[in-house]
Amino acid sequence: MSIDNLIEKIREKQNPSVIGLDPRPDYIPPYILRKHIEHKGETLQALADAYFEFNCGLIDVLSEIVPAVKPQSAFFEYLGPPGVEAYAKTLSYAKDSGLYVIADVKRNDIGSTAEAYSEAYLGNVKIGSIEKRAFDSDSITVNAYLGSDGIRPFLEVCKRDDRSIFVLVKTSNKSAGEIQDLTAGKEKVSILVGKLIEELAADTTGAYGYTRIGAVVGATYPEELREMRKKLKKTFFLVPGYGAQGGTAKDAAGAFDDRGIGAIINSSRAVICAWMKTGRNGEDFREAAADEALKMKDEMTRHLSV
Amino acid sequence: MSIDNLIEKIREKQNPSVIGLDPRPDYIPPYILRKHIEHKGETLQALADAYFEFNCGLIDVLSEIVPAVKPQSAFFEYLGPPGVEAYAKTLSYAKDSGLYVIADVKRNDIGSTAEAYSEAYLGNVKIGSIEKRAFDSDSITVNAYLGSDGIRPFLEVCKRDDRSIFVLVKTSNKSAGEIQDLTAGKEKVSILVGKLIEELAADTTGAYGYTRIGAVVGATYPEELREMRKKLKKTFFLVPGYGAQGGTAKDAAGAFDDRGIGAIINSSRAVICAWMKTGRNGEDFREAAADEALKMKDEMTRHLSV
Repeated sequence: MSIDNLIEKIREKQNPSVIGLDPRPDYIPPYILRKHIEHKGETLQALADAYFEFNCGLIDVLSEIVPAVKPQSAFFEYLGPPGVEAYAKTLSYAKDSGLYVIADVKRNDIGSTAEAYSEAYLGNVKIGSIEKRAFDSDSITVNAYLGSDGIRPFLEVCKRDDRSIFVLVKTSNKSAGEIQDLTAGKEKVSILVGKLIEELAADTTGAYGYTRIGAVVGATYPEELREMRKKLKKTFFLVPGYGAQGGTAKDAAGAFDDRGIGAIINSSRAVICAWMKTGRNGEDFREAAADEALKMKDEMTRHLSV
Repeated sequence: MSIDNLIEKIREKQNPSVIGLDPRPDYIPPYILRKHIEHKGETLQALADAYFEFNCGLIDVLSEIVPAVKPQSAFFEYLGPPGVEAYAKTLSYAKDSGLYVIADVKRNDIGSTAEAYSEAYLGNVKIGSIEKRAFDSDSITVNAYLGSDGIRPFLEVCKRDDRSIFVLVKTSNKSAGEIQDLTAGKEKVSILVGKLIEELAADTTGAYGYTRIGAVVGATYPEELREMRKKLKKTFFLVPGYGAQGGTAKDAAGAFDDRGIGAIINSSRAVICAWMKTGRNGEDFREAAADEALKMKDEMTRHLSV
């Protein structure tokens, strides 16, 4: 699905937020972890099975509240091949639940290597007479340090198969500026990356005025977020840094256009670890996540008109 | 293993080259592909099994000739979870064959996410009382667009577990310069990234004067390669772009220091696809790869004293 579909899902749910599925062993309710370790021992497979059960529970409740989820590949790769299988199953489960699925993989490469990543996450794998999906996502995150050679192969598959990507423009971390804030000519590197992607995707502008290449722009730099919104009028923003990383709904508001669209705000830990605050040992992890996701929706909508 | 171990392996083999294991369906000798498709049908698993058999054959002969291999994750992710399992098995098989193993994954992230990648590829995964390796590599490639927050978590694991990473500084592709050649102050972004990693790793300088953070610098920009060698005296170089991408042994020579060390040159397609030129339908893929690897060794050593 494209950015247009994402915008429509945001409107349906009246909620411009995306939940990051970032499991870690200590984020899994103890009863789930115990069950799988009893069944398969202290193995990578047991943890991977626990991650998948946790994700399915979260997706079941979140698919009623949010338009999208963003599973973070690193936490699944941490468990080796069984973890990657749980990642693939999570992407498919989220997609089957009607969510827009952003695989947060931050892949980057050139030529046939970038093509392989594109087909793996956004396109199809051809085997003899058969075509299959390797990883079932609508969109992935991409790092653009390699320039347009590292973006075009992804964009081609997006156009062919109606998908989108989000390119890292200004990240939410403290040292983001070391490279992204360097000034070349009159502009910062981050702005130049933003202009590069807006230009590359110019012929993919959809029904709401946004192209197939979105930008990752952190909520932790609110002034820059507003500046980016002005300079990159056709680029949809994926905004990390809300909640646990310190960004507020007011900070994130600058990511939206005058119509109240053009961005989606990510929260992870606050939602998926909400069970840790209720004193029920994780047995209520679904309800706790749903409550927190609704709280975030309220905070976001109070600062916006969606 | 660290950069010191890599340098020692280069000296043992008298060969500063690394072979990229970049399989694609059409790179696999037809008799291998046929066998696995007959056994498991037109499935991702059949292709993954074929990739692994091809890699093992290559590793068996190459481990006598080269010090290192660099398996490219994208081509395995292309096959979904079964491909990632073949990737993990390939890394382990190469390591068990005594090779220095560089997982070309170009990962990048911050905080606990970067830690997850670090432990997955360079460290250990903890499950209850047990520690396991998820992916068995000595080194990985890393994209540094996120700044030092995106490098430190990897460096910490390198120090703890005696590993190394290679950070993308100047890539070998045509559009590399769009971001990497932007001039900020008096220096190009690529040089500033190089200086950043040399500074971050300053306290990890090993027996040969090189730190635990190497740099990826393409052979396709020979003048810059020489300039980088002068400016980054403590940074070991991984040099792509030789052979199929147009870089020659003479171009790559600028990556080495006065002692003839300090770099390793990558070749992929020319070696792993050498069987396509012998007219024997791939039955001689091992011998053809060995011949081509020896030819590259000769070309490299003619331009260097190793």
